[in-house]
Amino acid sequence: MINIHEAEKLILDNCSAEKIELLPLHKAGGYVLAEQIKAPIDSPPYDQSAMDGYAFSFDGWDGQSDLQVTGEVQAGEFLNQEIKSNEAVRIFTGAELPAGTDTVVIQELTTLNNMHVHIEDKMISKGKNVRLKASQTKKGNNVLSSNHFLSPASVSFLASLGIDLVKVFSKPCISIIVTGKELIKPGQEVTKGKIYESNSYGLVAALEQLYISPVSVEVTDDDEMQIMNAVTRQLNSDIIILTGGVSVGDYDFVFSALEKCEVTKIFHKVKQKPGKPFYFGRHHNTLVFGLPGNPASALTCFYKYIVNAIGSFTKREYFKKTKLPLAEDYLKKPKLTYFLKGKSTAEAVSILNNQESYMMNSFADADCIIELDEDKEQFHKGDIVPVLMII
Amino acid sequence: MINIHEAEKLILDNCSAEKIELLPLHKAGGYVLAEQIKAPIDSPPYDQSAMDGYAFSFDGWDGQSDLQVTGEVQAGEFLNQEIKSNEAVRIFTGAELPAGTDTVVIQELTTLNNMHVHIEDKMISKGKNVRLKASQTKKGNNVLSSNHFLSPASVSFLASLGIDLVKVFSKPCISIIVTGKELIKPGQEVTKGKIYESNSYGLVAALEQLYISPVSVEVTDDDEMQIMNAVTRQLNSDIIILTGGVSVGDYDFVFSALEKCEVTKIFHKVKQKPGKPFYFGRHHNTLVFGLPGNPASALTCFYKYIVNAIGSFTKREYFKKTKLPLAEDYLKKPKLTYFLKGKSTAEAVSILNNQESYMMNSFADADCIIELDEDKEQFHKGDIVPVLMII
Repeated sequence: MINIHEAEKLILDNCSAEKIELLPLHKAGGYVLAEQIKAPIDSPPYDQSAMDGYAFSFDGWDGQSDLQVTGEVQAGEFLNQEIKSNEAVRIFTGAELPAGTDTVVIQELTTLNNMHVHIEDKMISKGKNVRLKASQTKKGNNVLSSNHFLSPASVSFLASLGIDLVKVFSKPCISIIVTGKELIKPGQEVTKGKIYESNSYGLVAALEQLYISPVSVEVTDDDEMQIMNAVTRQLNSDIIILTGGVSVGDYDFVFSALEKCEVTKIFHKVKQKPGKPFYFGRHHNTLVFGLPGNPASALTCFYKYIVNAIGSFTKREYFKKTKLPLAEDYLKKPKLTYFLKGKSTAEAVSILNNQESYMMNSFADADCIIELDEDKEQFHKGDIVPVLMII
Repeated sequence: MINIHEAEKLILDNCSAEKIELLPLHKAGGYVLAEQIKAPIDSPPYDQSAMDGYAFSFDGWDGQSDLQVTGEVQAGEFLNQEIKSNEAVRIFTGAELPAGTDTVVIQELTTLNNMHVHIEDKMISKGKNVRLKASQTKKGNNVLSSNHFLSPASVSFLASLGIDLVKVFSKPCISIIVTGKELIKPGQEVTKGKIYESNSYGLVAALEQLYISPVSVEVTDDDEMQIMNAVTRQLNSDIIILTGGVSVGDYDFVFSALEKCEVTKIFHKVKQKPGKPFYFGRHHNTLVFGLPGNPASALTCFYKYIVNAIGSFTKREYFKKTKLPLAEDYLKKPKLTYFLKGKSTAEAVSILNNQESYMMNSFADADCIIELDEDKEQFHKGDIVPVLMII
């Protein structure tokens, strides 16, 4: 059986199928750029007033005379007029400076008499209150690199350069197949021997956290043919996530169904608790994950492994990894990495009660998953442990 | 002019219009519960095997004899048969224990001869490998409180209890109105005096970060009637965000248009940089924000103020507030709070270049907004300052 580090590496080694797509900019927030962006224009595209006031030629002005106001230019308009040295124009924030002007005096530091403006700004200097053409970026400059995360501010910046299409790393297409004869849909009445199906709910919500909607969610019986059919239907996805039926019991058909679908096993079983029967395989470029049916095991494996696989497509890191001191002692078995539901503060992380893999009430209160090293048995209050923040 | 703390308080004081809706559970991830949830069933709903093995009565067994295997029960099935003290049943993980049994010995610690099972588990004890009925929660118990954040694990937990509808705090309906005669759409050719419209792009992406799509995005000219018409159309939204035209220049019509639409001004102008002309008003339960047209000002005000207003609807805290030491000295004017685009590490926060409100290139690289106190002028490397993480 491999350990968690080998499992992580094997998954990332098999994540080579990144895809690139051209997206309209207004849909590209949260993606990562797959191209280098050069500025298609100077920004600002012209000398621009930063304030409401009067534009004039600083060198043409004698420093004391009033200037004749010969025009007005509003933002969005263009004054096709050469301004002489004894003239000024009324100008507004964002407007293009007319030819012949280079400086703006703000309205509050002027008086206007008979269409002549008197400048009262004792500190006026050449270029004041003007945003020079290309002062943010010159046409042709590299402005954002490939692998840049498109934050809202990045999107706004690209829009301001006139860019409306960008190449980004695609989100993977993900299919979920939940298996189990015992599963009934929430909202129905629970009958003898049945339990409510919850894994698809947890996984869909977890994908939603990553801004991904699965392309398909199916629930099948513990039946090899049903599972094969479901897998075959989804083999054009980038990632298939199955839950349940991954052990080697008489009614665990996921492994054999995947073999028959020509999914190549990369590993099956990891030295971890919960999630020991965790399976990973591959069919051409489709990654196939088999998660245990217990909801806490399934979600733990999702956060620990599948999120990394998704990140290899999108080039994003979704959840913060940190280290925190344990708030209490803990005793575990050796030779298994433990993943425990935790609640963190800035100072420490507490191990919640009810860690059994069928219990979700503690997971519902958790904000993180604590990782306890496979080789160690005794953990003491204050020991620094890796923590994966999941909220 | 009010300061940022007064502005924040006035906004929150006017955010009283939370709304509650009933959502299907599979759409409820990321929302906050608006009701207390009681368990509608025991969970597990019956004594359940935790392993593949054989179920028997611990007290009925003499501790050495082989037990006759009289049946089999798979997960999802129900064995309507009373098991006697010298009998056992083949059982699989998740299956309901038949009447008369209370203990499961795992398959690996048994041998089977002629349909009799020999128990080799020297450590077997009563109830071993059994998940007792109601051991996670009893029917009628309070399991999640109102105001609980519906993480993926919480959603999975509720599904496992059979719940398929939950009351949650609604996301607000948000409309965006971008004003400016100078604006042209990215992708078109920039002409004399025009610039590319970028605020709607930045705001839509920022709302997307909060898992919210605006109900409407409009771009209008600097024209009072056009702005009034746009505002009137959106007065059934919970939040209207306008950008541009909020100063008091000859072509700033937002303020007058809002007055004519009977939007009551709560405040106009805040002692801050960028974003001084920031406006906040209210029309019945509709909150109206007027952001400056400069893209960096608009986005800064969004993160600092509007995100809190959205959180008052959804009961979520979206972005982490922290404190970090400055990586370098900084000199600012007094009597204005400064919001600076920053880049953080675990140890310190750096102030990026190009902080002018029309420049978005530094914002595109920022992962946080640094807040510098209004009263202070000199900041030194190592000074601890508030930081709002925005990525």
